Amino acid sequence: MATVYHRLVSLEEAVRRIENALGGVAPREVVEMDVADALGYVAAEDVYVKTSSPPFDRSSVDGYAVIASDTYSATENTPVKLRVVGKAAVGKLPETSISEGECVEISTGSPVPRGATAVVMVEYTKRLDEGHVLILKPVSPGENIAHTGSDLSVGDIALRRNQPITSREVAVLIAVGCERVKVYKKPAVTVFSTGDELTPVGKNLEEGRIYDVNGPAITAMLRELGFKATFMGILPDDYEAMRRALGDALKSSDVVITSGSTSAGFGDMIYKVFNELTEGNVIVHGLKLKPGKPTAIAVKDGKILFGLPGFPLSAMMVFLSLVKPVLLRLTGVLDVDAKAVNARMALRVEAGRGKHELLPVVVVEGVNGLAAYPLIGPSGSTSLLAAADGVVEVPENREFVDEGEEVRVRLLSEMIKPAELVFIGSHCPGFELLLSNLNTSNTKVVYVGSTAGWYAVKRGEADIAGTHLLDEKTGEYNVFMLDVTGLRGEAVLVRGYARRVGFLVQPGNPKNITGFKDLLRADLRFVNRVRGSGVRTLTDAKLEELLKGEEPLDHVKGYDYEVKTHSAVAAAVAQGRADTGIAIEAVAQPYGLDFIPVAEEKYDFLIRRDRLSKPSISKLLTLLQSAEFAQKLETSLRGYRILPETGKFL
Amino acid sequence: MATVYHRLVSLEEAVRRIENALGGVAPREVVEMDVADALGYVAAEDVYVKTSSPPFDRSSVDGYAVIASDTYSATENTPVKLRVVGKAAVGKLPETSISEGECVEISTGSPVPRGATAVVMVEYTKRLDEGHVLILKPVSPGENIAHTGSDLSVGDIALRRNQPITSREVAVLIAVGCERVKVYKKPAVTVFSTGDELTPVGKNLEEGRIYDVNGPAITAMLRELGFKATFMGILPDDYEAMRRALGDALKSSDVVITSGSTSAGFGDMIYKVFNELTEGNVIVHGLKLKPGKPTAIAVKDGKILFGLPGFPLSAMMVFLSLVKPVLLRLTGVLDVDAKAVNARMALRVEAGRGKHELLPVVVVEGVNGLAAYPLIGPSGSTSLLAAADGVVEVPENREFVDEGEEVRVRLLSEMIKPAELVFIGSHCPGFELLLSNLNTSNTKVVYVGSTAGWYAVKRGEADIAGTHLLDEKTGEYNVFMLDVTGLRGEAVLVRGYARRVGFLVQPGNPKNITGFKDLLRADLRFVNRVRGSGVRTLTDAKLEELLKGEEPLDHVKGYDYEVKTHSAVAAAVAQGRADTGIAIEAVAQPYGLDFIPVAEEKYDFLIRRDRLSKPSISKLLTLLQSAEFAQKLETSLRGYRILPETGKFL
Repeated sequence: MATVYHRLVSLEEAVRRIENALGGVAPREVVEMDVADALGYVAAEDVYVKTSSPPFDRSSVDGYAVIASDTYSATENTPVKLRVVGKAAVGKLPETSISEGECVEISTGSPVPRGATAVVMVEYTKRLDEGHVLILKPVSPGENIAHTGSDLSVGDIALRRNQPITSREVAVLIAVGCERVKVYKKPAVTVFSTGDELTPVGKNLEEGRIYDVNGPAITAMLRELGFKATFMGILPDDYEAMRRALGDALKSSDVVITSGSTSAGFGDMIYKVFNELTEGNVIVHGLKLKPGKPTAIAVKDGKILFGLPGFPLSAMMVFLSLVKPVLLRLTGVLDVDAKAVNARMALRVEAGRGKHELLPVVVVEGVNGLAAYPLIGPSGSTSLLAAADGVVEVPENREFVDEGEEVRVRLLSEMIKPAELVFIGSHCPGFELLLSNLNTSNTKVVYVGSTAGWYAVKRGEADIAGTHLLDEKTGEYNVFMLDVTGLRGEAVLVRGYARRVGFLVQPGNPKNITGFKDLLRADLRFVNRVRGSGVRTLTDAKLEELLKGEEPLDHVKGYDYEVKTHSAVAAAVAQGRADTGIAIEAVAQPYGLDFIPVAEEKYDFLIRRDRLSKPSISKLLTLLQSAEFAQKLETSLRGYRILPETGKFL
Repeated sequence: MATVYHRLVSLEEAVRRIENALGGVAPREVVEMDVADALGYVAAEDVYVKTSSPPFDRSSVDGYAVIASDTYSATENTPVKLRVVGKAAVGKLPETSISEGECVEISTGSPVPRGATAVVMVEYTKRLDEGHVLILKPVSPGENIAHTGSDLSVGDIALRRNQPITSREVAVLIAVGCERVKVYKKPAVTVFSTGDELTPVGKNLEEGRIYDVNGPAITAMLRELGFKATFMGILPDDYEAMRRALGDALKSSDVVITSGSTSAGFGDMIYKVFNELTEGNVIVHGLKLKPGKPTAIAVKDGKILFGLPGFPLSAMMVFLSLVKPVLLRLTGVLDVDAKAVNARMALRVEAGRGKHELLPVVVVEGVNGLAAYPLIGPSGSTSLLAAADGVVEVPENREFVDEGEEVRVRLLSEMIKPAELVFIGSHCPGFELLLSNLNTSNTKVVYVGSTAGWYAVKRGEADIAGTHLLDEKTGEYNVFMLDVTGLRGEAVLVRGYARRVGFLVQPGNPKNITGFKDLLRADLRFVNRVRGSGVRTLTDAKLEELLKGEEPLDHVKGYDYEVKTHSAVAAAVAQGRADTGIAIEAVAQPYGLDFIPVAEEKYDFLIRRDRLSKPSISKLLTLLQSAEFAQKLETSLRGYRILPETGKFL
């Protein structure tokens, strides 16, 4: 059943094989176009200045063009009187030339008339009448004149081969008289998705199937890089259909990218199709890369076929690490990795260990510059994808990346910016309400439960955390954690609000659930929350009381069915995947569920002291204390209550 | 003649006035589109998960779906034997359900059959025959199963309002079943250039006229930001023509941008046209900004007219600091300045002093992160524009920005990357030849003369400098500067090559120039090089001998006519702007000039020790020592000679 990969090769070896097979990864064609159209292309030639800059001796101020020596004796008290013999207008070579005792009125950018050797600024003159002006200050020869070619001269180099053309280069090339420029043609790229399980978004999703993410996502990544990419849709796991579609695409494209159907369990279909289409020229069949092992590469007549993994995050990371640099080199870009950012790893993370590893990370503005926060989870996770800002490569000879180690992060999109406000912690619709009224973009919200939020604040990755952790001994919420984590002094705890939690059940409570003891019943399936969340802490404490140290997994059906948010609990109960779960009351109604109260929690905000001055944080605190928010919270979220101390430092 | 500005307002005040006049700078329209088309737009709504992720309980590995408790006793030596009752294929809900002692073959991503509580990885199994498999390792309930909604669940938030949509958001939205998304419509922008002196590039440039840079450059900046901008060409300085064209553009666009014709000397035409078109709603007429004073802003019916300065670098900087943030806010972006980079100012620079100042800078990778290197020069300079990477704003209450001070740099284009190899120093076609064979992009080359190169290396801004400075006492080139600058130990000097310098004259030497004494003749006009260049140092030393301390400016006609490069000297002589100038022999022939030798210089390379390990530097040194380069240098550049020590450390 499992695919037998011929021999896993490293990322470097894969690129070397492409180079060898193509005779170098370089642009294949040069085209000439108008400079204005060349934006985003790479220069294919050295371009020389065609018109000197400035193209004539021009005045750099408004004033009077004079013979410098006429002005040497001028002072405010003993001005020199000159005859005004004309006016030098912009855009025309002046007809008048000047002799001793004469001058010409001139404006910025106008050509300096013959005979003049300097320009006096208008501020240092006094016009007497139509024909005369007083000069109040001397000028030396050349003053306020920009001489022909003094800036750039015919024959100087204006643009070098292989330089990307940005708006700045457009400006410079036109300034030096360059109308057309030779650039490297960009390769035409065609994208396919493959797999019987895929459904295009918008169509009804039959059970067992998933939406095709890779096709549109890879096409979007290509468009962001300036490629005209064509997405040709989803191909079924059918050899003939694939062979035909990919064969057609190869005729009209320089690069064809597929994703999916490369993994074990698919009978290795992509490999076989690539093999036939390229007459045996599959140069990579499996990468020593994690994720990314099921990657295939084939070449034919200077064209490249890439077969990427099926999971979106894996496909996007392999695209970034392998496909993107090759494509950029095909457009003439030499420095393919310049847009990566440097960051420090926020946590020690085990990685490498014999496999070149692609580690998805969140990038946040930490206390000392950018911090990369590793995202650990299954490759198929959409929430991981939503959180990922970029990728860190860990070589196979590493055992771990240390906390504080400098790493290079390739951003998933060059449009991605490190977040301005970072929230890590417990999920709460109350916080979502706060956020939606905050009117700020570029916020990173990571729901990982209360406990992880505390430690994210401690490490400086989060500006703010949301927490509802109960101290069983005192019945008090959250405050005790300041000492547990050693954050007292470093962070402040701001009281949020109260919210009721309890069991979510089908309308009418058909299974008659009244408390935690019911979770032990064999006819009930429970949906749990992830470890570290406030609800999980509460659940485990209650089960501990009931089970007296026995394994909950052996007694509670569904104890291992863990979800991350309150709404995920509600959805599981509403859709019958579980009979009950514990969540806040506010999610019961939208899912048409009944609610059996268990406790009223306090949900508070933990904020690093050094972030209190951030505009977004002070806006958030002001909003939290506002009557407007209190009103919205209590009317739109059932079971929520503003407290007398809401917004106060605890 | 000079324009009377009504009252200069600050940049902040200008933005406030736009906000007041429009009732807030925010998107005016929401449109719904396919997620794939929404790339580069900003979300106009909170988007919720429509389809849970995963949408069904799915296997995260290849293997066998089992009842976990069946496997508890399994070890390699005492495997558990299970009956294989079916195969779970990707894309279909399995029909088989399993009971005790049974299992189902399953591949990654396939739905888990009813009854199964875990999946055993294929690596820990041994298939016996069609109907049986041995399990070699126990699994716990839930192992290798991704439960429905465990990642993201219906009702979770997938995308927040005001979040820019990158390829990552496209992927996430599709993964959660979102086909269409509401985004903010982007404003339509029309661009004009104005001024009688402007000629479109490609047309013949009459004397006194210049090419229109701003139209294409501002349009390119808009395109880089994702706007569909229309450049409508050049308008003459004619009131009626401007009123008609801008009036028409206002009908079909949300924003109209002009440049030029705002300055003094133009009779304030743009202001008057804006005034009539908006019925007196010119809200800004002159900015307290340098450069950028001649900026006009008017509003009408929620539309904005911007009149920018005429010099390209000024226009582009005002665009960055004023127009771009307003335009981005109109598309729904809240964090308009996130793409700025932090850098340390490389030099103390006087700026501010009562005027909000826009300082063009070069950004280079210094020893300690990014360094910003201020570019001082006239606003009209094209070479300044070519060198500028971005802009630093200096508030009016500052007197200077200190060396080492942290500054925020707005990049001129988001496509601009800090240079990978920075050369600062003397101009030399030999170095250009080296560079063009180096095959590296993203190189910053700044020709400022030998001396400035030494200090740029000392400050760490340049990786490498080119120098040809003569020690008059010893006749030796360059080495003495190691002690003068205190760079011995910090930098190494690598011998380059020899090149002949001399007088460039018209063919046949009609003015009979034989040496420096001829420069004192009244019938000769000289073209000089800029201070700090090796040729200038030589010239000044020779003139000092001849003039014995008298001012050269009083004796040498054209002494103040300074150009920056050898080819600029050649162009000036060839075009008759000067009779002679001193330059390397290599530029004589391309310009059809004769050459009268004066000296043979040594052109060497100064390299910081901490940059010797840079790949581009070691490539450059290897090339310098190669026979291939020696051959190219001596055949293509007349007067150049490889030395026995070429490529050696001095």
